[in-house]
Amino acid sequence: MSALVVDPTAVAQAYRERLRADVADLDEPLRIVGFLGQDDGPAATYARYAAKGCESVGIEFDLRRTDAAGVEAAIGDANADPDVHGIFLYYPIGAPGADRWLRELVDPRKDVEGMHAFWSRCLYENRRWLDASRMVRAILPCTPLAILKLLGEAGLRRTGAAAPLEGVTACVINRSDIVGRPLSAMLANDGAEVISLDLDGAQVFEPAIGRHAHSVRDSDVDRAAALALSDVVITGVPSPDFELVRAEEIKDGAICVNFSQFRNFAPDVPERAASFVPRVGPMTVTMAMRNALRLYRTVQSHR
Amino acid sequence: MSALVVDPTAVAQAYRERLRADVADLDEPLRIVGFLGQDDGPAATYARYAAKGCESVGIEFDLRRTDAAGVEAAIGDANADPDVHGIFLYYPIGAPGADRWLRELVDPRKDVEGMHAFWSRCLYENRRWLDASRMVRAILPCTPLAILKLLGEAGLRRTGAAAPLEGVTACVINRSDIVGRPLSAMLANDGAEVISLDLDGAQVFEPAIGRHAHSVRDSDVDRAAALALSDVVITGVPSPDFELVRAEEIKDGAICVNFSQFRNFAPDVPERAASFVPRVGPMTVTMAMRNALRLYRTVQSHR
Repeated sequence: MSALVVDPTAVAQAYRERLRADVADLDEPLRIVGFLGQDDGPAATYARYAAKGCESVGIEFDLRRTDAAGVEAAIGDANADPDVHGIFLYYPIGAPGADRWLRELVDPRKDVEGMHAFWSRCLYENRRWLDASRMVRAILPCTPLAILKLLGEAGLRRTGAAAPLEGVTACVINRSDIVGRPLSAMLANDGAEVISLDLDGAQVFEPAIGRHAHSVRDSDVDRAAALALSDVVITGVPSPDFELVRAEEIKDGAICVNFSQFRNFAPDVPERAASFVPRVGPMTVTMAMRNALRLYRTVQSHR
Repeated sequence: MSALVVDPTAVAQAYRERLRADVADLDEPLRIVGFLGQDDGPAATYARYAAKGCESVGIEFDLRRTDAAGVEAAIGDANADPDVHGIFLYYPIGAPGADRWLRELVDPRKDVEGMHAFWSRCLYENRRWLDASRMVRAILPCTPLAILKLLGEAGLRRTGAAAPLEGVTACVINRSDIVGRPLSAMLANDGAEVISLDLDGAQVFEPAIGRHAHSVRDSDVDRAAALALSDVVITGVPSPDFELVRAEEIKDGAICVNFSQFRNFAPDVPERAASFVPRVGPMTVTMAMRNALRLYRTVQSHR
């Protein structure tokens, strides 16, 4: 068996073509402002990818260099500027303890990353629409959303039912607030049982079946048991020292996704997996741009 | 039997005395800015109570008149002003559809009402501390917190266990995002089973026992069954037409609390209840001031 390898650049391309057409149809330029605190390093690289992505779909991207002293006021200015439709933050920007607050200072209506607690609440409480008439969808965080879209390309089947992933077991190795935790919640809200592994232990995200949202409990399941059970294995361990997931650890025909910048799966995994998504990056920027368009339309529809 | 009637003004007084001493000990004046969109009506009345409350404990209170066009920039200015430590919003202020966003524009570190989604997330996910070392407590919304404090005065016993309200059944009639819903979540996070009634039906908030937080499900329990089961009955129906809760509907020895500006309990309820809290208002302002002091200390400790 040799796994289908999903190329996120190719998947992103299809979304970008649609986005380019939609952005061109707007009455005014769609403009995103990025705030960058360092000239080099991963944040600067990420900002460059965002700039290229925006250029490719016709979104104006204005990258602003800022620092710990100026960033809060700079975010306030962008919030107040009617010609700015989206805001992107490239951490680290502020003082170490202060960075955590910056995302909360972005007007949620301009939060293309979907990281403001207003959107997190929708996600964790499994509220998919902002309005009772189900016209305005809640915004989802761009990396977990990118992974969900790639899982679809990788062959994860969803039923038409209220819990489209009922019966699926997933293992997510990473429980960061940026990716692993919201991703686990989204999968469990769709009906999957999710085993979340991280340095501080295991948790199970139980499916939102018979209740409004998923439910989280501590667990003593270990890596071996979790991997042996899982139809889907998603890794995001940001370390070169992680003990790679090996083919012998996973289920035959599992769907495997890595969103870390480091390799998390051993080279033999595609021999046993049904499909493999080696990286997610290009889809993350694409989903942020898609969020920008959605937010723009939401704000316009409320004027 | 004649119920203990709890006077929220007297309870608030004890908190205010402690607050006055703590505020006097600070190195600088503690300052709250209130934003008011109308000169008359309930919002203006609430702002007057807040002004009096702040005066009584030595907090500087600066009430600013604003409008739909100016409020977002005004909140931004207050966020950026290091001499402003707390922000209070008196709705309605903005355009009808825009008011819902204002609370998200307040810097959560200045949100004395505890209404920003950053704090709501802590509440709904049952995260009581911001830090792993459990030094900094999360802020709770001021009216539900006021009700919890008054329940203690009314004789609601809490065990020392992880789920101090285990075994308690509560009925909360009101499921607003401001009071009824967060209050139900807080009671269930403490181990109570909460039946939440509102115009759009019944929900049960199941206790956070064996999982990290409460869990919500729809229910078809009706008012009669809910009231007959409940050790605690809390009402907040903002209407003079509500069919008052009568003594015959409640359990012998129930604890009853009304937070509506209208009477929600019939006059015979104190004959059957163990205790009765007829109103909450003075404690709400007091808890907002207490939040202001907590937020000030949190921010100082991170400088």
